[in-house]
Amino acid sequence: MSQRKNITQKDVAQALGVHSSTVSRVMNPDTRHMVSAEVAQRVLKAVRELGYRPNKIASTLRTRRSNTVGVILPDISNPVFPPMLSGIEDTLAEKGYVPLVANAGRDRARQRLVIDQMLGRQVDGLILAAVERRDRILDHCLEEGIPVVAVNRSEDIGRVSSVVSDDRLGMRLAVEYLVGLGHRRIGHIAGPQTISTGYMRKLGFIESARSCGLADDECCIVECSAYSREAGRVACTELLLKFPSVTAIAAGNDLIALGCYDTLREQGRVCPDEISVVGYNDMPMLDLIAPPLTTIHIPLHEMGVQAAKLILGSIVRTQKSGINVMLRPELVVRGSTAVPPSSPETSRAITT
Amino acid sequence: MSQRKNITQKDVAQALGVHSSTVSRVMNPDTRHMVSAEVAQRVLKAVRELGYRPNKIASTLRTRRSNTVGVILPDISNPVFPPMLSGIEDTLAEKGYVPLVANAGRDRARQRLVIDQMLGRQVDGLILAAVERRDRILDHCLEEGIPVVAVNRSEDIGRVSSVVSDDRLGMRLAVEYLVGLGHRRIGHIAGPQTISTGYMRKLGFIESARSCGLADDECCIVECSAYSREAGRVACTELLLKFPSVTAIAAGNDLIALGCYDTLREQGRVCPDEISVVGYNDMPMLDLIAPPLTTIHIPLHEMGVQAAKLILGSIVRTQKSGINVMLRPELVVRGSTAVPPSSPETSRAITT
Repeated sequence: MSQRKNITQKDVAQALGVHSSTVSRVMNPDTRHMVSAEVAQRVLKAVRELGYRPNKIASTLRTRRSNTVGVILPDISNPVFPPMLSGIEDTLAEKGYVPLVANAGRDRARQRLVIDQMLGRQVDGLILAAVERRDRILDHCLEEGIPVVAVNRSEDIGRVSSVVSDDRLGMRLAVEYLVGLGHRRIGHIAGPQTISTGYMRKLGFIESARSCGLADDECCIVECSAYSREAGRVACTELLLKFPSVTAIAAGNDLIALGCYDTLREQGRVCPDEISVVGYNDMPMLDLIAPPLTTIHIPLHEMGVQAAKLILGSIVRTQKSGINVMLRPELVVRGSTAVPPSSPETSRAITT
Repeated sequence: MSQRKNITQKDVAQALGVHSSTVSRVMNPDTRHMVSAEVAQRVLKAVRELGYRPNKIASTLRTRRSNTVGVILPDISNPVFPPMLSGIEDTLAEKGYVPLVANAGRDRARQRLVIDQMLGRQVDGLILAAVERRDRILDHCLEEGIPVVAVNRSEDIGRVSSVVSDDRLGMRLAVEYLVGLGHRRIGHIAGPQTISTGYMRKLGFIESARSCGLADDECCIVECSAYSREAGRVACTELLLKFPSVTAIAAGNDLIALGCYDTLREQGRVCPDEISVVGYNDMPMLDLIAPPLTTIHIPLHEMGVQAAKLILGSIVRTQKSGINVMLRPELVVRGSTAVPPSSPETSRAITT
């Protein structure tokens, strides 16, 4: 993209033969509805082609900062987010900033509406926890010239700074631990493949299953439609039907693992005696459930801290875009994993 | 308060001998910091005394609605709120509104900052889940003339519409159930008494302990500093020290009940065999914990729906203020309650 320094809103208007106020309306999400969708598309296309950088005017038009940062969550009911929000909140508070949270859900039109509402509220930046691997919503944010940081999930082509955990490594830790316990038939319930966490964890599963010498036909994978307990229950039923000999399940996240618990209970199978289950994320309260869930811990609070630091740096322009922070996951062994049934390695498992 | 129809911002300025722009700055939370705190207080006092209604100008100054509603939570990590938010979100979405959520925390200065940021973002109304029984933040919202609805918690003098559950009745259901199991020494870990839920549930406990014929010295109450698992753990330790003969605990909410689980585990006491525990709220995932928590279910999603309906009505001025919706709680029996140890009523408990 060319970076001609002196391109103005007026230049864009002239290039298109429209009035300058039309361009202005399109650039402001709060007034874009006053212009037809067709014209808005033409204006945004011209903005891109001319290399006009809307963040320049945005910062001129905004007489001062609002001291708010929008945080967009994919699912506010997933307990993985409060610790992350707490890290964001604490770090923003040090600089007098307040996070405003919105739940984007999975519907694209709804996500767009939520983002536009945030932009209309003149937040100074956005932390997106709802990014997909190829994300048109992110195109939209970049067009608006608003500082953006992705947290937990990242897009494939990495246009914005992000803070993620090493999802391939995390899943490898899960598989290697299960193999160490003696499991040879390990199933994986993958998260949605449109999301980096689902994709990278599945990749980590396949890689480590191979490197551990599990044959391909022992690599039993089912994909989940969503990161939810109910989707996990459905997918686990499918997994056990397709691959009845699995003795362990590496779940795409903790909610999926809780869905596995539901399926096992329905089928009268005991965890971990008959089947081991490993979750992913280490969301709060897993120590209280029965059996307490073995999982991959990701530093949720620290991810929030790092994301907040990046967005603050981006807002005050001291921080370039394109910074990718990757944090290290850890295995947390609790009570949902054991040696496979009738395995000779029982004595070893007790000391693990 | 007098309601002189034609009082203007200019009248307020003249009465105080300040410039009209000063009044204007004070009335806008986004610019109030430009005026000294002392002057701001004088302006707000004059506004009240003259019966000037700032919502009039607010609605005039705002050229159109923002279609956003601010939702202020006391603690975003309490799992009780996502189902409530989902009810709010679904109902607002039907009218094209988006909720923006902020975590107010327990610090009053922070709460004020968060509310001011919401007002500065020009939300059309506020749903407050963080209201205390006597709430100065609510004074502030009323001064701003913004539509407000309280949800889950209400203030004592009921100046704004609210949606709550019948907390006295709910606690009565818990006590009567425990008495029916044969418990005579029942402890209560009350929530913070500055909050309506903590206050009303404690009242319900005292009333039902009396009406069930439990003597006053059998009415064992300890108060919690916060609605959290950690505060519950501390309070439960105190309760068992002060009243070692209790055989059942009615906790002020589910998180407090989870703290009781921690204390009992620390002390090697088995729930429910040695001590029964009842929670309050029926937050998600209680069915998965060990033992599954008996609790008082409050219709969280429906509370959100009702609160959203009230705020929408208030925004479009079809709904008067002062509507109080009270929803009915229900007992949900799970695995954390049983007959007291060495009770003659074992046979009865099995059929309860």
